[in-house]
Amino acid sequence: MEIRITRARDEVRRKKPADESRLGFGDVFTDHMFVMDHEPDRGWHDPRIEPLRDLSLNPAAMALHYGQEIFEGLKAYAARDGQVFLFRPAENFRRLNRSAARLCMPPIDGDLALAGLKQLIHLDRDWVPKGAGTSLYIRPAMIAVEPHLGVRPAKKYLFFIILCPVGAYYKEGLNPVSIFVEDTYVRAAPGGTGEAKAAGNYAASLLAFERIRAEGFAQVLWLDATEHRYVEEVGSMNIFFATAEEVLTPPLTGSILPGITRDSVIRILEHWRIKISERPIAMDELVAGIRAGAIREAFGTGTAAVISPIGRIRYKGETLVVADGRMGELSKRLYQEITGIQTGRREDRFRWREPVE
Amino acid sequence: MEIRITRARDEVRRKKPADESRLGFGDVFTDHMFVMDHEPDRGWHDPRIEPLRDLSLNPAAMALHYGQEIFEGLKAYAARDGQVFLFRPAENFRRLNRSAARLCMPPIDGDLALAGLKQLIHLDRDWVPKGAGTSLYIRPAMIAVEPHLGVRPAKKYLFFIILCPVGAYYKEGLNPVSIFVEDTYVRAAPGGTGEAKAAGNYAASLLAFERIRAEGFAQVLWLDATEHRYVEEVGSMNIFFATAEEVLTPPLTGSILPGITRDSVIRILEHWRIKISERPIAMDELVAGIRAGAIREAFGTGTAAVISPIGRIRYKGETLVVADGRMGELSKRLYQEITGIQTGRREDRFRWREPVE
Repeated sequence: MEIRITRARDEVRRKKPADESRLGFGDVFTDHMFVMDHEPDRGWHDPRIEPLRDLSLNPAAMALHYGQEIFEGLKAYAARDGQVFLFRPAENFRRLNRSAARLCMPPIDGDLALAGLKQLIHLDRDWVPKGAGTSLYIRPAMIAVEPHLGVRPAKKYLFFIILCPVGAYYKEGLNPVSIFVEDTYVRAAPGGTGEAKAAGNYAASLLAFERIRAEGFAQVLWLDATEHRYVEEVGSMNIFFATAEEVLTPPLTGSILPGITRDSVIRILEHWRIKISERPIAMDELVAGIRAGAIREAFGTGTAAVISPIGRIRYKGETLVVADGRMGELSKRLYQEITGIQTGRREDRFRWREPVE
Repeated sequence: MEIRITRARDEVRRKKPADESRLGFGDVFTDHMFVMDHEPDRGWHDPRIEPLRDLSLNPAAMALHYGQEIFEGLKAYAARDGQVFLFRPAENFRRLNRSAARLCMPPIDGDLALAGLKQLIHLDRDWVPKGAGTSLYIRPAMIAVEPHLGVRPAKKYLFFIILCPVGAYYKEGLNPVSIFVEDTYVRAAPGGTGEAKAAGNYAASLLAFERIRAEGFAQVLWLDATEHRYVEEVGSMNIFFATAEEVLTPPLTGSILPGITRDSVIRILEHWRIKISERPIAMDELVAGIRAGAIREAFGTGTAAVISPIGRIRYKGETLVVADGRMGELSKRLYQEITGIQTGRREDRFRWREPVE
């Protein structure tokens, strides 16, 4: 399918951020967006790149009432030689299609979406920031647009991709964050939508964080919905713990997000011949392991923050300090390896890098 | 706060449905909508009634990504003398505010919303259908409109009310529906958002129904997320079972919607001196009770369908028939009482009716 391109006129182009070192996350958008529509008879059609504009949605658009909304998050990175790389983008479109299946939404053609994304980035290439720790955050999303009140899958959808030049996701940057273990509210139950990147999962997660935000925690650590005993994931990250012998992370049993950075970490650890165990991690075990010093590092993984060291974990009134509250060696090594691959500074042995042109 | 009114010009007015007996549900909208905006500094402001129009939303509007979207559903009914009545509308705005608190959204002034709703209905009063079984369905909704990528509560919101003249919610009308007991997928877990009328709950519920829709089931009956053993609620309804001695319904423990029709049924049964027990109902008990004939009726309650008799329940490969697949006496009596109160034909002993003018 051909992708139609309408360029933004010069006079409507946005102002690029003057100081890349002060880029925040998620408030600055580029000049263009990729869009396509889905109707039952036509399937996905009219893929196009247009000037970024407001969407015109009927107030009865089903996305606004019944939450048929899924998204992805990935990044493009500027290499020193001016090339722009994507990191495992096909994985994101595959995951989008798994989310779509869970929410009864139509799958997209991942190749078409990737082609559209590349053309979009190429058109907005002056927006890709070059400073250390910066990148172009990419947000593909699919929403139900049919106007109808009544619970059923919609008959019309919109898929779009928007772009944001971004800096660090956490104000802490690479400094270790403090997380709060939530044992009342839950994010997702087995049989629910926890492994889909569905909008409703995030709305459900807000209150637990708002209750503890003022105390300086960066994220909530979720426990399983059934026993409130096993570690699941952190707000917008998967979680890992390192002992002297192995690295631990909860398994993908349906209620946690199958993170692409999570998968990349596992594969790098395997390549480094560091033992990695995907198995249930009980809070009791974790508390004992941290107290005894057996757990030497804790870190979160995600597209937004890549690797985020965890220095403090608050659980049932006790603050557990990991790695003396500093960034551990393994966390640092993983961060350097992954960002090195992403920005073209390290060997791409897994073929994860994908040039935009 | 004064409500500003902008009337639709005659040339943009929509065509009213010619045949009320053929009204469906949720596809026909009236000429106007109520709208107000929320910003941190100003709170809710500019309440207004405008011609129904598409919303202009930034593609990064947080509602579309993180699911901060809640809604309500209530109805207005035409009485024989031409009066129009609402049914317990203040309860809906109270529940909306509870949903808002769960999703970290700002509460509205229920009195203002109700005043706006009454003016809206008055302006669109020619749209209130008069035929048997018809009503004006009312959809208040609140969505996050701030453009931002990153998980946190939004800083800007939109509240709106739209109106739909409707007929029966189920194609079955008052004929008993068949429901399927879902023992894999779950709707909501304790500590989740099940008692909020949050968009994401509905998206999460679609797949279970899509898997069995072709077999003629009208709805899914959800079980508890922890043990998959206790009855929770039906797709868009609360559920009741009647024996010779009492009426049973699951208690409000946080994972089911606190239905206003559910509450009305309980209060009517109390007034009739019929014993009503809000207690956990295990599937084992239900199966045994239906097989033994002890459970004489099953019905769902909700704004859309009011009382919907349940004739067949499919569980683990077995079809349990209730009340010989017909509408039971108590279901009928409740339906007549509630719709009688709603339409002004019966005494309003609970003061549930609220005239629009």
